[in-house]
Amino acid sequence: MREPTLKAFGQEVRHWRAERRLSQEVLADQCGFHRTYIGQIERGERNPSLINVLTLCRHLGVSLPEFFIRYEAALGTFA
Amino acid sequence: MREPTLKAFGQEVRHWRAERRLSQEVLADQCGFHRTYIGQIERGERNPSLINVLTLCRHLGVSLPEFFIRYEAALGTFA
Repeated sequence: MREPTLKAFGQEVRHWRAERRLSQEVLADQCGFHRTYIGQIERGERNPSLINVLTLCRHLGVSLPEFFIRYEAALGTFA
Repeated sequence: MREPTLKAFGQEVRHWRAERRLSQEVLADQCGFHRTYIGQIERGERNPSLINVLTLCRHLGVSLPEFFIRYEAALGTFA
């Protein structure tokens, strides 16, 4: 189950980033992350910490419930 | 900001665990975590990974949106 949940998470990050018209680099800078970290997240290659999830949502301008409603729906398609 | 967000997360885990009448040990066993991990989480001493957050919510029988609605409200009181 590891990979699909992380891939789904990455797809949600990509969805919101595209919605906000932010590049991976700009989002990384705003979050204080390494430049390559957002790409790794979006490809499902990272298992981010809670604090990094909160930081991402804040800088993507999406509330936690809003983010996790879509994410849980996406997980359904991987179950 | 690190500590308050983790403390608030721990309080939410404790809330749902009490609601389900689960001991820390039983919840840890069900999640496949070390016996001491739930206590550390509830005291805000850990920054859990996304996968561990998903595992906790699943074994607490709470949906992700439901968990994060309460958590985001709790974060407001720390802001």
